[in-house]
Amino acid sequence: MVSIPRGFRDFPPPLMILRKRILSKIEGVFKRYGFDPFETPALEYWETVRGKLGEEAESRLMFIFPDFLSKEWYALRYELTFPLARYVAMHPETPLPFKRYHIGRVWRHEEPQKGRYREFWQCDADTVGSPHPEADAEVISLNIDVMREFGFEGFTVKINDRRLLTGIFEEELGISDPIPVYRSIDKLDKVGEEGVRADLLSKGMHEGLVDRIMEVILKRGRFHELGSELSLSGNERISQALAHLEEIFSIVNDERLLFDLSLVRGLEYYTGPVFETVVSKPRIGSLAGGGRYDRLIGLYSGRDVPATGVSIGVERLIDAGLELGIFKLDEKSYVQVFVVSVRRDSWRYAWKVAGELREGGFNVSVDLMRRSQSNQREYARKLGAKVIAFVGPQEEGSGTVTLYSDGRRETVNLKGAVEAVRRLLSQSGS
Amino acid sequence: MVSIPRGFRDFPPPLMILRKRILSKIEGVFKRYGFDPFETPALEYWETVRGKLGEEAESRLMFIFPDFLSKEWYALRYELTFPLARYVAMHPETPLPFKRYHIGRVWRHEEPQKGRYREFWQCDADTVGSPHPEADAEVISLNIDVMREFGFEGFTVKINDRRLLTGIFEEELGISDPIPVYRSIDKLDKVGEEGVRADLLSKGMHEGLVDRIMEVILKRGRFHELGSELSLSGNERISQALAHLEEIFSIVNDERLLFDLSLVRGLEYYTGPVFETVVSKPRIGSLAGGGRYDRLIGLYSGRDVPATGVSIGVERLIDAGLELGIFKLDEKSYVQVFVVSVRRDSWRYAWKVAGELREGGFNVSVDLMRRSQSNQREYARKLGAKVIAFVGPQEEGSGTVTLYSDGRRETVNLKGAVEAVRRLLSQSGS
Repeated sequence: MVSIPRGFRDFPPPLMILRKRILSKIEGVFKRYGFDPFETPALEYWETVRGKLGEEAESRLMFIFPDFLSKEWYALRYELTFPLARYVAMHPETPLPFKRYHIGRVWRHEEPQKGRYREFWQCDADTVGSPHPEADAEVISLNIDVMREFGFEGFTVKINDRRLLTGIFEEELGISDPIPVYRSIDKLDKVGEEGVRADLLSKGMHEGLVDRIMEVILKRGRFHELGSELSLSGNERISQALAHLEEIFSIVNDERLLFDLSLVRGLEYYTGPVFETVVSKPRIGSLAGGGRYDRLIGLYSGRDVPATGVSIGVERLIDAGLELGIFKLDEKSYVQVFVVSVRRDSWRYAWKVAGELREGGFNVSVDLMRRSQSNQREYARKLGAKVIAFVGPQEEGSGTVTLYSDGRRETVNLKGAVEAVRRLLSQSGS
Repeated sequence: MVSIPRGFRDFPPPLMILRKRILSKIEGVFKRYGFDPFETPALEYWETVRGKLGEEAESRLMFIFPDFLSKEWYALRYELTFPLARYVAMHPETPLPFKRYHIGRVWRHEEPQKGRYREFWQCDADTVGSPHPEADAEVISLNIDVMREFGFEGFTVKINDRRLLTGIFEEELGISDPIPVYRSIDKLDKVGEEGVRADLLSKGMHEGLVDRIMEVILKRGRFHELGSELSLSGNERISQALAHLEEIFSIVNDERLLFDLSLVRGLEYYTGPVFETVVSKPRIGSLAGGGRYDRLIGLYSGRDVPATGVSIGVERLIDAGLELGIFKLDEKSYVQVFVVSVRRDSWRYAWKVAGELREGGFNVSVDLMRRSQSNQREYARKLGAKVIAFVGPQEEGSGTVTLYSDGRRETVNLKGAVEAVRRLLSQSGS
């Protein structure tokens, strides 16, 4: 039987119309913050990706395949940050800061489940070139504006800094391989405090160390209540991170921005602040996230260029918005006017009426099936067309069109039809 | 060295801004004709594609690769029509006619050259469900409107019908395998009349037959001068095709629509009218094309559903428009206002000014590099920002901002800044 690949989706018009509305709003915020559009190939050479995204992505989750003519191997785009880094490395002439947004699909060979697909869209905004906290603060403010734009309430942006994790766990607590510790504390939201403690103990750590780790990661909340406590150690990485975070907090100046030492984030290329945006309900994980990666471009070019950015997880945002009733699948079609041919021999005049209304800028359909009047109306109703334009011998004889909308009917001259349709559409609120 | 896969492209902001402008115009025409948005996966199962697109596509031009976990094989999307057919076959509940547009990328393992890429975008509009010439005429009219929308002059839409080719070459001329003949006549524009003749002779055809073939394919021009001549044979397929074309000509009623018996088109799934849009200059091949495929959906579902559509080749359209000067790469950035911090300590007020202007709906950038005033201005000039907003201790003290545009400078209250910027932008024509 014919089928669609597992974990992949078709988007029929009602879903696409909603998605385009949402993506266009996100794009509007990106543009207002001064980011410009950018696109890269769906495929990259596997050589370009290797060693950039970490063990799990590269060994298990990427679609990798050989070219059948050359000896090259390709990888389907796993995310949108490393192609940006590859581009900047190949184009050192790019004026800095380079502020680009990229809305595009990525592919991950996950086990499909609710809300998890093998093909999905990401919306990224990144600033390349600035090492300063202003650049981080800007993408965080942008992220908050995206959430506000959609009317999400009760969201928070959790922020941490990779240098704090290193400074505390490696340097202060002397843990030589902290990756398993990060994996454990990353689960705090899912398994709770006792879960993390049990996890750490099961990895063979002694109870004293686990106590100290737990004490550190539970330092959540407002930054200023915690910063001074942490800065006591005098560790250089910790001081750098705290100074950087201090400036971000001062610029963003939003109480939804919360310091959280248990925030880790998966990708390996982060070097400074990292953040994630979560909603209190539904329980769906993070809707956006990002951070600073000052060494990724250098992996390509040998010359580090500082960079920071945010990625909006539009699939989860849509799922959460639908569940909260913020988004509705209420628009089935863009068609605003359906021109009904009352009799078969009216079709040529119907075509003319449709042409006039299209010239006026409206989205118009005519009968293509040679259906009866009632079947044309039924189809127009299914599309959700706000205005039905009836065209019969009478209208053709008098050069008019009969418009029907919201239970009212009026006959207007063809010349006045554009104006009349505009009025009817504005009355019906579309 | 780091590189981008051969035949693939990055699109930096100036190219993306032009592409988005062009795609949005095409989308506007699609919508006005009553088509709705639609999207399908980048990958399809190879089983789904096999036997649908013809020998050349399937044996040589598709990216095909195995899943590394399951035993499935994938194919990167080669074009946008067969995924539509696959969707309709899987969703027999879809109300007909189903009029969808699809703007998306496709992949072909071509040898890269000027104007030919391994990854490119197509813009398709198709109507599923109607067997009538109205549906063909609608996508042809839409195609003509797209060309008019961009100001292309001197274009023609060549039209033919697969049933005419079959009726004439197989039934009238008794050629049992006409495919090599089609291949030869398809080259008419490239190699000329003598070239086609030589090509046919080299395939071992006798001179009398070649004379008759040449006589047939040179019947180009206005339909009505040729139709009556062809209809004399009484061959049923020929009669069906002529009646169908007759109606299309009558509805479209545009002298740029020209009957051309040498038009073949490559894809194998066409069953009725086929058409192609060409410009007289530059010599770039066809910019759009399409036709009727009444049996493709049946290959998936076992039940034929008539369908017809058009595909706009947006890469060639862009290349042709750039060469003709219709399109220009004149917009480097969406940024409309750049806020210059006159002194380092003005940055917090600059941030506030930027926020106000963003609330007003403008695209605004601020300094993220802690640059000098002159370096900020130089960067703003590179972006092409129409308005520069200067912010220094004087502005901060008085709650104002100094706007600079087109050689003029004025200081306004922060509250009036949105209105002032709107006025300056409308004066500078953006």
